Amino acid sequence: MSDKLILGISGSPRKGANTDICLQAAMDAAAGVEGIRTETIYLRDYRIEPCLGCFACCPKTIVPERDYACPAHRDDDMSKIYPKLLECSGLILASPVYFGNMTGQMKTFMDRTEPLLRYGTGKFKYGLQHKVGGGIAVGGNRNAGEEFTLLALQYYFQVHDMIVVGSGGQPTPGCYLGGGATTWPNDKSESRDGVLKDELGLMSCRNLGRNVAETVLRMGI
Amino acid sequence: MSDKLILGISGSPRKGANTDICLQAAMDAAAGVEGIRTETIYLRDYRIEPCLGCFACCPKTIVPERDYACPAHRDDDMSKIYPKLLECSGLILASPVYFGNMTGQMKTFMDRTEPLLRYGTGKFKYGLQHKVGGGIAVGGNRNAGEEFTLLALQYYFQVHDMIVVGSGGQPTPGCYLGGGATTWPNDKSESRDGVLKDELGLMSCRNLGRNVAETVLRMGI
Amino acid sequence: MSDKLILGISGSPRKGANTDICLQAAMDAAAGVEGIRTETIYLRDYRIEPCLGCFACCPKTIVPERDYACPAHRDDDMSKIYPKLLECSGLILASPVYFGNMTGQMKTFMDRTEPLLRYGTGKFKYGLQHKVGGGIAVGGNRNAGEEFTLLALQYYFQVHDMIVVGSGGQPTPGCYLGGGATTWPNDKSESRDGVLKDELGLMSCRNLGRNVAETVLRMGI
Amino acid sequence: MSDKLILGISGSPRKGANTDICLQAAMDAAAGVEGIRTETIYLRDYRIEPCLGCFACCPKTIVPERDYACPAHRDDDMSKIYPKLLECSGLILASPVYFGNMTGQMKTFMDRTEPLLRYGTGKFKYGLQHKVGGGIAVGGNRNAGEEFTLLALQYYFQVHDMIVVGSGGQPTPGCYLGGGATTWPNDKSESRDGVLKDELGLMSCRNLGRNVAETVLRMGI
Repeated sequence: MSDKLILGISGSPRKGANTDICLQAAMDAAAGVEGIRTETIYLRDYRIEPCLGCFACCPKTIVPERDYACPAHRDDDMSKIYPKLLECSGLILASPVYFGNMTGQMKTFMDRTEPLLRYGTGKFKYGLQHKVGGGIAVGGNRNAGEEFTLLALQYYFQVHDMIVVGSGGQPTPGCYLGGGATTWPNDKSESRDGVLKDELGLMSCRNLGRNVAETVLRMGI
Repeated sequence: MSDKLILGISGSPRKGANTDICLQAAMDAAAGVEGIRTETIYLRDYRIEPCLGCFACCPKTIVPERDYACPAHRDDDMSKIYPKLLECSGLILASPVYFGNMTGQMKTFMDRTEPLLRYGTGKFKYGLQHKVGGGIAVGGNRNAGEEFTLLALQYYFQVHDMIVVGSGGQPTPGCYLGGGATTWPNDKSESRDGVLKDELGLMSCRNLGRNVAETVLRMGI
Repeated sequence: MSDKLILGISGSPRKGANTDICLQAAMDAAAGVEGIRTETIYLRDYRIEPCLGCFACCPKTIVPERDYACPAHRDDDMSKIYPKLLECSGLILASPVYFGNMTGQMKTFMDRTEPLLRYGTGKFKYGLQHKVGGGIAVGGNRNAGEEFTLLALQYYFQVHDMIVVGSGGQPTPGCYLGGGATTWPNDKSESRDGVLKDELGLMSCRNLGRNVAETVLRMGI
Repeated sequence: MSDKLILGISGSPRKGANTDICLQAAMDAAAGVEGIRTETIYLRDYRIEPCLGCFACCPKTIVPERDYACPAHRDDDMSKIYPKLLECSGLILASPVYFGNMTGQMKTFMDRTEPLLRYGTGKFKYGLQHKVGGGIAVGGNRNAGEEFTLLALQYYFQVHDMIVVGSGGQPTPGCYLGGGATTWPNDKSESRDGVLKDELGLMSCRNLGRNVAETVLRMGI
């Protein structure tokens, strides 16, 4: 059996900064599990148009199957991401906390996965169903949206009928809901790498990555 | 292999009313899955003392294993529920929505499961880890806490390092987060059986039950 | 004009421990505002029966006004708390975080305030409407329910049609949603006073108290 | 005293559809309150670049005040919206529910209001502090993100240290958290005007508008 793919997606506009660092910690932990391979996508490298709410992706009437997901934006970079979403067995979404929630970039990406819902057509329909999802949120202040952002990421997984896992059973956890890290101990939101001093937060990211990987294997998806 | 147990717990003080009806719909759907058996507990039939936050259940130092979970309340009815929690492979929690959240009765029960956390001892430690959880919330008004109550139930599952599933991929769902039903179409919060007219809500409860059952079998736990 | 009352309620079973300490910090800050007086209730000192969901407190038909709120439990200690709820202009609820949410004790208290809703009768009807609410959550781990507990407390305020305020505009905040403190820096959930080392958390509690007080005065209620 | 401005912002990509209809219902109710005037912004009519997380808007060091808020995107259409945000006394945000949360368009707008936070400079600093916020969420399914979207909108208000109000004390409410409407009774997510049949949802939007207006006047801001 070929290795299962766990796809990581970063919604941070800042290359190599705290969110990327936390996601990398999770992906490394996942890749360390026998039978798992990983790939990471940085949304800042892709041009993604916002969903127009036109429902052209999910017609109720029978339509000939097509090889593109979104009729409204056939040519933007989501066309490079859709195949990876269909291919993966596990999905890890990582976002900085902006106003208590994920970034607009991450949300705009999410909105464009409408064609992978129950309403989709052809190979895109139920494109993420029964796959394993885990979230990572990185905040610049303490108790300032890390939890809510993780809940928002998990809500997305459930709309796609995915399996949701948290950061696992590690003895004295930080956030139970996933990887929850913060630059706060440095009190400098501008810090690009403050999370490196947040060992508890990084541990929760590693636990999340391992937990997603092990659940993928247990589920045999 | 013997059938896997899915345990349902109702946090409603009202016997046979809306929440019990919704939970029954979920349990029937779960029991309909080959390889699954079900049991239902109604918290109103049990005397459960509130947690005292004394941490006697989870000493950090090594202690001789014991056959009771909570030293503070050894004699109340949680002693009848703990074995069922250890035995089950899936757990479905159903609560009416009171003030946007689960009932005090359900929360008081939850608090007493501290000995089953990572901090526990002996057979109780990690008593729910990796098991499958699903929630049901029943509200008397529309968009008035059903979602938040489900999020609160799911938070509990994640503190126990459980796998969280929603109400599944049914074509035009009500609540994605689990069974979400309401008596609202009748506009009578006092209604004891208004959910019987909420076919969409009952469908989400049946989907939740089936989803928990099928995930238990896929996980092989 | 006589001073406005801000009522503080602690849902912790542990006398003088972290939650009480945080609530005291908020109440002291509120009391320091000219024109404000404070009182604090510790739920552990009161015998409060769980709501039975009998709706006897909120009959739709006209009934003679009565001097008790809950017909089902006329003699328990909620009868001592109802008058304070009617009297106060601001309400601060403080709870430890148990399983990502408030304690069962706090939730059981909440459920018993049904007679103060829009459905109530006589002097109890709309008993909390337009008053100012603020929340305090104290957790033993990091990003482990402080936010969700505050959201749950705020949900309660909104069901009562209250005004919700957070922890205010202090330059580098911890939790925006209210007082969010944690014993985590000590990594010992059992700590009775770990929050004393959480200066950021205590500051958010003081800010919350001042914010509730100042909003009460601005609202002139 | 000149009339107070309540600003409404729609995050829907669909002109004149359900979310616009619900927002209009709220704005009309607000405008009906003596002493209130209203304006509505439709984000789809503005070109708004995503926040780069560069923190150029909120330097910790003293800088000469400037008449623009975001150094990274000085020329996009947020420059037309910032003055309205500074001018308003109340803010009503309305979004369709996409994946249980606000649209990417709404979130991208939010992220760009960083210069109005406590970290801002000159006239932009604390640009929304102590103003009154209310949310509207419009969903295509039942209990499928309306609540969570409203919580997300309220979280934003609290990060800005605003006052949060819900949909008020109307006798038999739908969503307590704000305007919560759905096209669900028609079971057609594609419906452009299904909310017109959701009288309970429209009522909650009107209540929200009136509640924001009356709270603005009570606060005297």
